[in-house]
Amino acid sequence: MKKILITGFSGFVSAHYLHYLEKNKIQCEIIGIDVNRPDFKFSNTKYLEVNFNKYDLLESENIEKTLFSFQPDYVLHLASYSSVAYSWKNPSLSFQNNIIIFLNLMEVIRKVCPLCRILSVGSSEEYGNYTQNMLPIKEEYPLNPVSPYGVARVSQEQLSKVYCNGFNIDIILTRSFNHIGPGQKDVFVISSLAKQLVKIKKGIEKENTIRTGDITIVRDFLDVRDVVDAYHKLFQHGKSGEVYNVCGGMGTSIEEILKIITGILNIDIDIEIDKELLRPNDNKVIIGSNEKLQQTTGWQRKIPLKQSLEDIIAFWDEKLIKE
Amino acid sequence: MKKILITGFSGFVSAHYLHYLEKNKIQCEIIGIDVNRPDFKFSNTKYLEVNFNKYDLLESENIEKTLFSFQPDYVLHLASYSSVAYSWKNPSLSFQNNIIIFLNLMEVIRKVCPLCRILSVGSSEEYGNYTQNMLPIKEEYPLNPVSPYGVARVSQEQLSKVYCNGFNIDIILTRSFNHIGPGQKDVFVISSLAKQLVKIKKGIEKENTIRTGDITIVRDFLDVRDVVDAYHKLFQHGKSGEVYNVCGGMGTSIEEILKIITGILNIDIDIEIDKELLRPNDNKVIIGSNEKLQQTTGWQRKIPLKQSLEDIIAFWDEKLIKE
Repeated sequence: MKKILITGFSGFVSAHYLHYLEKNKIQCEIIGIDVNRPDFKFSNTKYLEVNFNKYDLLESENIEKTLFSFQPDYVLHLASYSSVAYSWKNPSLSFQNNIIIFLNLMEVIRKVCPLCRILSVGSSEEYGNYTQNMLPIKEEYPLNPVSPYGVARVSQEQLSKVYCNGFNIDIILTRSFNHIGPGQKDVFVISSLAKQLVKIKKGIEKENTIRTGDITIVRDFLDVRDVVDAYHKLFQHGKSGEVYNVCGGMGTSIEEILKIITGILNIDIDIEIDKELLRPNDNKVIIGSNEKLQQTTGWQRKIPLKQSLEDIIAFWDEKLIKE
Repeated sequence: MKKILITGFSGFVSAHYLHYLEKNKIQCEIIGIDVNRPDFKFSNTKYLEVNFNKYDLLESENIEKTLFSFQPDYVLHLASYSSVAYSWKNPSLSFQNNIIIFLNLMEVIRKVCPLCRILSVGSSEEYGNYTQNMLPIKEEYPLNPVSPYGVARVSQEQLSKVYCNGFNIDIILTRSFNHIGPGQKDVFVISSLAKQLVKIKKGIEKENTIRTGDITIVRDFLDVRDVVDAYHKLFQHGKSGEVYNVCGGMGTSIEEILKIITGILNIDIDIEIDKELLRPNDNKVIIGSNEKLQQTTGWQRKIPLKQSLEDIIAFWDEKLIKE
């Protein structure tokens, strides 16, 4: 039975990872760490033994206590200050926090459980801007991050390689592209748009105008359930020190997504571009190649975009009744 | 008259920069910041008005007071925890300190003097290992740092680009290769070797054995007086957001340097390899291209290696009499 430590436990990816393990009958002992309590249940599981520790990863002593006694096989490091927008508002704090929590974790691992395998989750923001003829982006492309958040992710990756090659720590790295799926917070664009549109459909919102940033930007959206499948397969088959894109391999603009959602909901809307939501130096088009991930792990994308959007709509539809 | 702020003021590069400005009759008002008092004099100058502020750049409020009242034209950011060896011993603290002092400085500049021009000093350690057929290393090569210190320097560079492109701050970047010259501390390899050899020559050290790390490694050593000339020319002619190698363009092994120094001193020595001084993942050969620096600024290397070594020997010769 594997022992798995999950940081950023209360987030949306972690919730789906627990669901994935349970659904696939993978018996595990799990400790989750997060600064916030999870808003999902994890007690009624058949295959998982889950415990939750509430503290901030900025506090090294707590990490040491947990890891020393737990001795995990796998560490899924999901915790991060992952808002690109926030990183533009407060570049210094955003950068520092991301790096310090990562280094705290790594220093403790080096000291008390140097044989565990770590999945260090990075971001497509590491790549920066690529011209269309260079797409899809492959792992060997140079990294030219344009946001403070992107720089922090590159640093995390490069530090991981230092720990891997210099200190023999077993780390696998991802550059994860945009995740979507039911349960995602509405600070993320697709979830936010879906919520606004469901409100219009239900008549909770009287005006059929939605506010959004640049709708021409194209992103490589992947369902979170495919993401956690990739993460688990990387724990099993990933090569230490290697980086893997976790992405769908195709791009969709925000505009197209709006069309699909309004089609599913059968509503007409007006779009209002909110300049507050535009970011300096935003990447126009990001599409990744998932060839390396597929070849190494046998992973395949299973959930098409339309199904993701239907499930996100169903999530908001139910949640907005309760609220 | 230009106003120049120098961080890492008490270091060896700063001392030579002051000397350079004075020697070239460049009238300047200067404020130096350092956590340690300088051990050189800066009061008897004809062309420079120099003030020193003793504090740690980890203290943001002090930086803000200084910059708000001084309003520098140029900021020469030399301060860093620059020991690669230390970064291996304490990767977390070394990384954090380098990045936090840089971000503190940038956040204050963004707030109180956003029009000044900054020279952000980076390192050849950013490149990582290159095979011989790729040398000399050009600025457009990918960065694959292998030490925690190297990663911190890459982060500083990428954050600089974020501040430059995202916030319109005027930053010029260097990747500076190994500096040598009179006055350098003996924690750096050439200075340390020269000191040991001068001691042997003078009979202060009875045994003619010197302890060193790997003597086959090849570095691109440049005299600090050529380095500060490059920095000043970059302030004048560098292009915002661009990175420049500051290097001599040729490589010399530690072994060859030992031969030159023992030749100058006319002594015979035994070499003892000290495993404590070997580092994980050390780069074998580093040679840079200075073509871009030359083309942009008209800079030319002036001081040949042998003269640097003679001057370093003269420095230790005099200093070891006083001690």
